[in-house]
Amino acid sequence: MPSLSRSQCQALDDSDPLAYHRSEFALAPGLLYFDGNSLGPRPHAATAAAIDVVDNQWGKGLIGSWNDAGWFDLPQRLGRKIGMLIGAGDGETVVTDTTSINLFKALSAAIQIQRKRDPRRTVLVTERDNFPSDIYIAQGLAAFLDQGYEVRLIDEQLPLASALGDDVALVSLSHVNYRTGAMYDMAQTTEQIHNAGALAIWDLAHAAGAVPVDLRAGDADFAVGCTYKYLNGGPGSPAFIWVAKRHQNTFWQPLTGWWSHTSPFDMADSYTPAHGISRYLCGTQPITSMALIEPGLDISLSAPMDHVRAKSIALAELFISLVEEHCPGLDLTLITPRSAEERGSHVSYFHPHGYAVMQALIARGIVGDYREPGVLRFGLTPLYMRYVDVFDAVAALREILLSRAWDQPQFLKRNAVT
Amino acid sequence: MPSLSRSQCQALDDSDPLAYHRSEFALAPGLLYFDGNSLGPRPHAATAAAIDVVDNQWGKGLIGSWNDAGWFDLPQRLGRKIGMLIGAGDGETVVTDTTSINLFKALSAAIQIQRKRDPRRTVLVTERDNFPSDIYIAQGLAAFLDQGYEVRLIDEQLPLASALGDDVALVSLSHVNYRTGAMYDMAQTTEQIHNAGALAIWDLAHAAGAVPVDLRAGDADFAVGCTYKYLNGGPGSPAFIWVAKRHQNTFWQPLTGWWSHTSPFDMADSYTPAHGISRYLCGTQPITSMALIEPGLDISLSAPMDHVRAKSIALAELFISLVEEHCPGLDLTLITPRSAEERGSHVSYFHPHGYAVMQALIARGIVGDYREPGVLRFGLTPLYMRYVDVFDAVAALREILLSRAWDQPQFLKRNAVT
Repeated sequence: MPSLSRSQCQALDDSDPLAYHRSEFALAPGLLYFDGNSLGPRPHAATAAAIDVVDNQWGKGLIGSWNDAGWFDLPQRLGRKIGMLIGAGDGETVVTDTTSINLFKALSAAIQIQRKRDPRRTVLVTERDNFPSDIYIAQGLAAFLDQGYEVRLIDEQLPLASALGDDVALVSLSHVNYRTGAMYDMAQTTEQIHNAGALAIWDLAHAAGAVPVDLRAGDADFAVGCTYKYLNGGPGSPAFIWVAKRHQNTFWQPLTGWWSHTSPFDMADSYTPAHGISRYLCGTQPITSMALIEPGLDISLSAPMDHVRAKSIALAELFISLVEEHCPGLDLTLITPRSAEERGSHVSYFHPHGYAVMQALIARGIVGDYREPGVLRFGLTPLYMRYVDVFDAVAALREILLSRAWDQPQFLKRNAVT
Repeated sequence: MPSLSRSQCQALDDSDPLAYHRSEFALAPGLLYFDGNSLGPRPHAATAAAIDVVDNQWGKGLIGSWNDAGWFDLPQRLGRKIGMLIGAGDGETVVTDTTSINLFKALSAAIQIQRKRDPRRTVLVTERDNFPSDIYIAQGLAAFLDQGYEVRLIDEQLPLASALGDDVALVSLSHVNYRTGAMYDMAQTTEQIHNAGALAIWDLAHAAGAVPVDLRAGDADFAVGCTYKYLNGGPGSPAFIWVAKRHQNTFWQPLTGWWSHTSPFDMADSYTPAHGISRYLCGTQPITSMALIEPGLDISLSAPMDHVRAKSIALAELFISLVEEHCPGLDLTLITPRSAEERGSHVSYFHPHGYAVMQALIARGIVGDYREPGVLRFGLTPLYMRYVDVFDAVAALREILLSRAWDQPQFLKRNAVT
C-alpha cells in the first residue's frame, strides 16, 4: 500500500480535531520539532505564568505568597491534575523533586514492604535497556543498603518471566522505552509481577500525556514520571510520584524532609510521617519551575486522550510507511515495534551514522534527537505536530541519506545532546 | 548608653557603603521586610532573567539550549559563584536539588567513610534545636539503613562534648541556628568533632551570604545550604552541596542518578560515579528556578563580606538596644546571643503571644516571621535594609505591645507560615 502524498497529509491536518492546540505553543515557522519527547515546547501561557510568579508572587507577595499564592499546595494541586492523565485517584499524586529521586523513594518504600512481607526478597529487577538513571538508582540503592540487595537486569537472554524468582522484591520498568518506544501492557505485566510476589514500579516519563495510562486499573504499586516531555512543563520542571492508596500510610520513604512530616510547623524534634501522598514530599520545591507546569497540563487536560492516541498512532504509521516507501536501501532499521499497540509516541531508527544524520536534519530545522548507539529518535506529539511535518521530515531524511549530506565534518563532531 | 534616634539612624543610612544595593531589589515603598532570612526579595534583574530563560532559552532555543544556553553546566557554574562566598575551592560546590536532599547525600557519604574507617561508629549526632528537616533526614536515614544506626540529639542536658563518644560517625550542625540566630565557631567546633574521630557536616542555610564562611579554613567535611534566603535566588530555588576535595572521589552518595555518572550520554547499563563534585548531582534540575539564582548571587558577590558583616552587626546592635531602651516590661525576651560574634544575621525574641504580635506587625507592613514556640524572628539583611527600618520596626513593636493591638481575633487565628 503506498503511503500518503503531501496533499493527502494536508487534508488530514485540515480535518484534525486537535489542530487548534498548535496555536497554544510557541513554535517558530519552519521549525519541525520532533523532540517534544525530550523537552516539550513552551505554551504561550507559560510566559504570563512566569511573569506572575516572579514579579507578582515573589516580587510583591514575598513570603506571604506561601499562603496567598497557594505555594504550599502546589505539589498536591498539580498532582491532582496529572492524576487525571494517568488514572490516579484523588490524593495519590504529588509533583516534587526529580524523576530519579522519586524513583529512589518508590524503590525504598517497596523494599520496606518486602522486608516485612518476605525479607528473603532482596533482588531489584529492572531492564538493561531501561533509561540509565533508572538502572543507576537501583544499583546505588542496593549498594548503599549493603545487606545483600542486588540488581538483576532483564534483557533478551533473561526475559521477565525467567527473572521473576521468589527472591525478587520489586520490578521497576519504564512504561514506554526511552530509546525504542516499545510499550509494556501495564495491566498484564503488573499481574505477572504480582503473581510472582513482587511489587511493580512504573516510570511514566515517556508515557504521561503521550499514551493512555490507567494506574488504578493496572493495579500498579508505585509510579514516577516527568513533566517536561509530553506535558510541556519547561526545562527540568519537577517530576511526579504516584503511590497506590494501599501503600501510602503503611510505608514511608527515607528522604524524610520536613515537608513529609505530619505537622511541619510544629517544629517537633522527631519525625512523624504525614498521612497520604504528602509523605512522599521532602524539601522546599523550586516554585518558579513548578508554577510553569500548569499551562502545559491545562492544554493536555483539554485534549481528549482518545484523540491524542489516535493521532499519535496515525503519525507513527505515516512516518513508518513513508520511510518504507521512500527510503529503502538507505541503511535505516526501524527499532520501534511495528505494531501500534506495542509502542508509545515516538519512532526510532538505527543508522550506522545516526549521530551525523541527526545533525544534518537539525541543520535543516528538523529537530529530533540522537541516542546511543546509532539511534535517530523522532518524538510524535499530537498536540502540535502536523501530518505535513512528518511528510517533510521523511523527505528531508531521504534526501540527506541519498546525497550523503551527513558526511560533513560539522555533523560528525560529537557534542553533548539530550 | 541610650540607643540611637531616628535622625542618627538616617545619618547611618546616608553614609552606608552598601546603600546602593537596595536599588537592585524590588521592595515596595513603605514595606519593612525583615524576612529575607526566609525568602529574599526579588532582584530587579531576575525578571529579565526569567523572560530570557522562558521565552528565549526554552521557547526559541528548545532542546538546543542544553548546549547553547549552558544548561548542562549550570549546577557547576552557579556552584563556583557560591563557592566564592563560603570559602570553597574550585570544583567543590554544585547547585542542585533541595537542602534536605543534599543533606541526605552528605550524611550518606559520611556514613560510608566511617563504615570503612571504623564500622562501630553508628551514631549520627545533631542538635535538638536544629532545623527540624535536618533532624528528620538523619532519623529517616538511620531507620532506613536498619543496621543499628541511631540519632543522638545534643541539647542543654547533653552538650556536644559529652555526646562525642567513640561510637559517633558524624556530627551535623547548622552554622547559624534558624530560630535563635546563635552561630557556631565553625573551625573550633569542627576541630572538636575531628578530635573525637567524627566527621563534620555544616548546614549553611542561614549563613551563606549572611556571615563570613570559610569551609576550607574551617576544615569542614561536607556542607549544604540554601539559595533563597540571604542569596535572594527566588522561592524554593535549588540548594547547594559542598564536599571537601579529600572526600570527593573516594566516597559516593546513594542518589546515583545519571547526572552523577562519569559518562551519562554513553547510556551504559552500570553505574560509574563521576570524578569530582559532579558525583553529588542526581537528576535533571529545574532550569528556570535555577537560572534565577544568578542575579542575586551577582549582587552578593559585588558586596564585600566585611561590609556586609559589619552592617549586620550594627543593625542587630541597634535592634537589640532599641528594644532594651523602649520595650522594658513588655514581655519580650531576647533569645539570640547578646554577643555579636556568637550570632548570625537575625534577632529573635520570645513573647507569650508571639504569633499574634507578629501578625499585628505584618498588618502594619513590618514583615518578620514567627517560629514555634512563641518566637518573633527578624532577619537583618544588609544588602537592602536601612537603619531607619530597624528604628521604625521597634517603634511599631513597642506601640503594638503597649496598646495590646495584637489581641484581635484576626491576629490570633493560626495560619501556615514559613
